[in-house]
Amino acid sequence: MKLVPTIGEMKALSSSWRKDGETIGFVPTMGYLHEGHLSLVRESVKQCSKTVVSIFVNPTQFGPGEDFERYPRDTERDLGLLEPLGVDAVFIPEVKEFYPEGYQTYVEVTEITNRLCGLSRPGHFRGVTTVCCKLFNIVSPHKAFFGKKDFQQFTVLKRMVDDLAMDLEIVPMPIVREPDGLAMSSRNTYLSPKEREAALCLSKSLKEAQRLFSSGERDANKIREAVKKIIESEPLAEIDYVSVCDPYSFDEVDKVERGTLVALAVKIGPARLIDNTQLGVDEI
Amino acid sequence: MKLVPTIGEMKALSSSWRKDGETIGFVPTMGYLHEGHLSLVRESVKQCSKTVVSIFVNPTQFGPGEDFERYPRDTERDLGLLEPLGVDAVFIPEVKEFYPEGYQTYVEVTEITNRLCGLSRPGHFRGVTTVCCKLFNIVSPHKAFFGKKDFQQFTVLKRMVDDLAMDLEIVPMPIVREPDGLAMSSRNTYLSPKEREAALCLSKSLKEAQRLFSSGERDANKIREAVKKIIESEPLAEIDYVSVCDPYSFDEVDKVERGTLVALAVKIGPARLIDNTQLGVDEI
Repeated sequence: MKLVPTIGEMKALSSSWRKDGETIGFVPTMGYLHEGHLSLVRESVKQCSKTVVSIFVNPTQFGPGEDFERYPRDTERDLGLLEPLGVDAVFIPEVKEFYPEGYQTYVEVTEITNRLCGLSRPGHFRGVTTVCCKLFNIVSPHKAFFGKKDFQQFTVLKRMVDDLAMDLEIVPMPIVREPDGLAMSSRNTYLSPKEREAALCLSKSLKEAQRLFSSGERDANKIREAVKKIIESEPLAEIDYVSVCDPYSFDEVDKVERGTLVALAVKIGPARLIDNTQLGVDEI
Repeated sequence: MKLVPTIGEMKALSSSWRKDGETIGFVPTMGYLHEGHLSLVRESVKQCSKTVVSIFVNPTQFGPGEDFERYPRDTERDLGLLEPLGVDAVFIPEVKEFYPEGYQTYVEVTEITNRLCGLSRPGHFRGVTTVCCKLFNIVSPHKAFFGKKDFQQFTVLKRMVDDLAMDLEIVPMPIVREPDGLAMSSRNTYLSPKEREAALCLSKSLKEAQRLFSSGERDANKIREAVKKIIESEPLAEIDYVSVCDPYSFDEVDKVERGTLVALAVKIGPARLIDNTQLGVDEI
């Protein structure tokens, strides 16, 4: 497993692999890896002959007052987790090489980013699309793997790749959960034991949405209210949004159908957690 | 010379060339070709084993009320000009394939586009960087050739390519002029004979700037005023801007030096014409 600290070295490595006819799989991460990330890595190793993981806490996707500074970092631990999985290269660029003085180019997806997390985190998706566009140019992957916990992120990136005719496939992968249902997230480490307990209201409320759907409920508002009620009954939880929406446009719907997205962002103490489920599609 | 009407065919062609070890040169145009374009094509044919020319009047780089509708088009004539030069492929995408319904991704260079033409044409450079980013992804060139008449355009595109670590070289090429000094432009066709005569004030004023510089003048304001005076003495001319600026940041300067950019945009009747010269560097 090669550690690659510079853009030039990463480009050279990808380019030589491309010349040799390798298929390159890519898992971009902000590090502090958990089982969710590792599931993406395993899938990449399975589908591609070379796998690159990047570790880069990207400043441009954090807003002012967000948790860029305190975002958990532990590269040694991350490398220890990646080594046994058959990863070929770990790209760990430095912020000052990635965004040098005078840097001023941004990639923006305009409509579907004005929904859900885009509303409470202005500029967030511009940071995500910019960093991913640049990472894709550097790593030159055939496939890039993203977890569906950030469902909107995966949709936005797929839109960018299609719109700009970029030469790769965005592969969405299922949410990985703790045994009790909490979606895995590096930000779960922010939670005290009490908050960790409270955080279960997210997955519980989504389970209830699925239960209502499978028992025949098609009124989006009823599902929305049932989800809200479960979260609001948890004193440590503060709702950012509860959305029952079309999984492509993220427009709120009146009637749900198979595939309708139920998406949440909830603040639990110091952590803003997200979770989602597609009705009648995902197991939870 | 192959005519390529779809994105898919163009990607397949480039990809097969890349596999065969060809070097791909690219000249993106909006058609209605003149000697300026052809000089770029000749250079590409010289430097690269395959040359692609695109013809695409890109709607996103025209503002409301600009000349998108009446921009001159004559593809038959263009193809006749390209055929003898050894061009390998002409990519002529359709607007509805290039920007399908739901299209919403844009690439933006933020600072150096808030100067010169960026001020009077808001959104113009966002259109240019977006279309070029997508064209580069489709054509996958090793080198792309741009004339320095649009000096700011070439600088903005170079910035985009560097910032996003795109895998190509932007090659700037000298301005091509009519024998009497007028910089070649597809928009020159808008000019009546009288306006055509009046348009000479642009290159004349730049000649005067070079003369002042070579006679030792270093005061930017004196050069700026001398240029303005020549243009203002032409009744059919209306100045959009006259800039004496740093050729990288486009910040106005107080003292000029070798390489300082003198850049103009001037309305002559129905045409908005641009021209520029780097002091002590360019012949004019």
